[in-house]
Amino acid sequence: MDGAELTGKKVLITGASGFTGRHAVEFFQSAGAVVVAVVRREYVYAFPEGTHVHVCDLNDKTQVRQLIDEVRPDYVLHLAGKNSVPDSWSDPLLVLETNVMAVLYLLDALRSCPAARTVIVGSRLKYTPEPGKIPQPPHPYSLSKALEEMVTLSWMSLFGQQIMVAEPGNLIGAGPSTGICSLLARHIVACEQKGKTEAFRLSGRENTRDFLDVRDAVRAYATLLVHGTTGTVYPVVSGTERSLGEIADTLLSMTSANVPVRWDGATSGPDGAGEEEQLSLLRKLGWQPLIPFAQSLQDILNDVRIQQGRGTD
Amino acid sequence: MDGAELTGKKVLITGASGFTGRHAVEFFQSAGAVVVAVVRREYVYAFPEGTHVHVCDLNDKTQVRQLIDEVRPDYVLHLAGKNSVPDSWSDPLLVLETNVMAVLYLLDALRSCPAARTVIVGSRLKYTPEPGKIPQPPHPYSLSKALEEMVTLSWMSLFGQQIMVAEPGNLIGAGPSTGICSLLARHIVACEQKGKTEAFRLSGRENTRDFLDVRDAVRAYATLLVHGTTGTVYPVVSGTERSLGEIADTLLSMTSANVPVRWDGATSGPDGAGEEEQLSLLRKLGWQPLIPFAQSLQDILNDVRIQQGRGTD
Repeated sequence: MDGAELTGKKVLITGASGFTGRHAVEFFQSAGAVVVAVVRREYVYAFPEGTHVHVCDLNDKTQVRQLIDEVRPDYVLHLAGKNSVPDSWSDPLLVLETNVMAVLYLLDALRSCPAARTVIVGSRLKYTPEPGKIPQPPHPYSLSKALEEMVTLSWMSLFGQQIMVAEPGNLIGAGPSTGICSLLARHIVACEQKGKTEAFRLSGRENTRDFLDVRDAVRAYATLLVHGTTGTVYPVVSGTERSLGEIADTLLSMTSANVPVRWDGATSGPDGAGEEEQLSLLRKLGWQPLIPFAQSLQDILNDVRIQQGRGTD
Repeated sequence: MDGAELTGKKVLITGASGFTGRHAVEFFQSAGAVVVAVVRREYVYAFPEGTHVHVCDLNDKTQVRQLIDEVRPDYVLHLAGKNSVPDSWSDPLLVLETNVMAVLYLLDALRSCPAARTVIVGSRLKYTPEPGKIPQPPHPYSLSKALEEMVTLSWMSLFGQQIMVAEPGNLIGAGPSTGICSLLARHIVACEQKGKTEAFRLSGRENTRDFLDVRDAVRAYATLLVHGTTGTVYPVVSGTERSLGEIADTLLSMTSANVPVRWDGATSGPDGAGEEEQLSLLRKLGWQPLIPFAQSLQDILNDVRIQQGRGTD
């Protein structure tokens, strides 16, 4: 995937001002695509020059239909959604409406563009029901992502649409992420710039997670838009579990400040990089992660230093 | 279930002006319950005296919350929904919104009434996904009922609510049903009153279905409200498959008019009265069908004669 296939193609990106969305807009712009960035509110973010910004409430089916009729995209990357587990407890209805109905409105509107190819970004936290048992999702967010995937694949079956599902793990990178790497980077910069001394709390050093640079994930989404097999669920992960200890050590080695960290010792199993067979699905399309882990962390830290220096983060 | 447990209890019934809803209102009124009949529009139906009629758009979560806060029901029977397979093709979004989001709004509002016991009426036409396979529901309606059940049981698990799911088969009885028995009864009365001669088309004589009188179904719902086990899915069926030939013969024996019927010979398997084990779930609670099949058909025919005679059907 060198991006040449994207030149001149109209790519519609929802959730364009979010963490992944900003990287996606940049990637597709660089690849020469005509990028339509869909945002909920006008003011939120200064996109690169040439980006076509559309304001649309994806929970309003009339607005969604108008958007699709007007844009008539070649490719659609659906990143919009509510992604906070705690927020899904405080307002479960909003999470269900946003993660289930919005995708339904989008896919239904896309029935008028049968040539469009769509990637819906799901989550590896989705709940998987056990046959014959009462569903017991651990939180409303996991339910919402299960329903989103079921609606997505059903719409594909019912109406013959070209839809792929991407299931990213923990994406890391510069920008408004609330992941562990970004939070620790912000703590480090607060120590550097404001001499903050409160300890940053982390769980067990040995706990592992699969981390993938958000720019690698965006290239994976682009690969799926162009080459993915419709109706397939693709895990988007690095395939490498890394311990929280390694993350902390690497980030702390990038600063000379005194950064207090407290390990609370709670252990948890790996979050699962997925089955080998599933992992190879994206590799078979020619994709692989390119950005070294230490580079991702350095870029996050540098970005926070710039943002905090500007007083904008 | 003699209804004594219902005396003075506040029973909220959604979809109260529909086919089953009218029978439900009548049953719970007779049992001495305080019946709150929820309808979408003001004028639709003249309920028995004493019924408290509330107009509420169940797709509007604010209205639903106000309804529940105001009524604070002991029991909730959720009958509202879109139940036409053909309509689910012509407006799939409406079917999903009505059958999935409305139940979600209702259950979420009921979190403020933890003592309330709720029966959600699902469908035996719901799609059951096969593990590891792409969902392929036969129509948007079957998808909507699958999602409705998953949302219902998940809400029960997540928020500890008291919810039972009822899955009726083919309910028959007087009123605005679009089932085969009512359609043939209307054809018979048209022949009696207007000398209609166009043939009524039926599929194979040997094709069988499970039919249950709607009044027996309402008693089953009442049994579940009072005695059902939370988180359980109850088939509401007679357990007896009857052939279309038997139905036609029985109905035609009740008229002296010349009623042309055409069999197109298409055969289809039984629609499945359910597993013996499942069937016994409601029997264990003391419920069983009471109304003989011929009585159901006679009542349908008599009702159509009265309605058509009045020119109101």
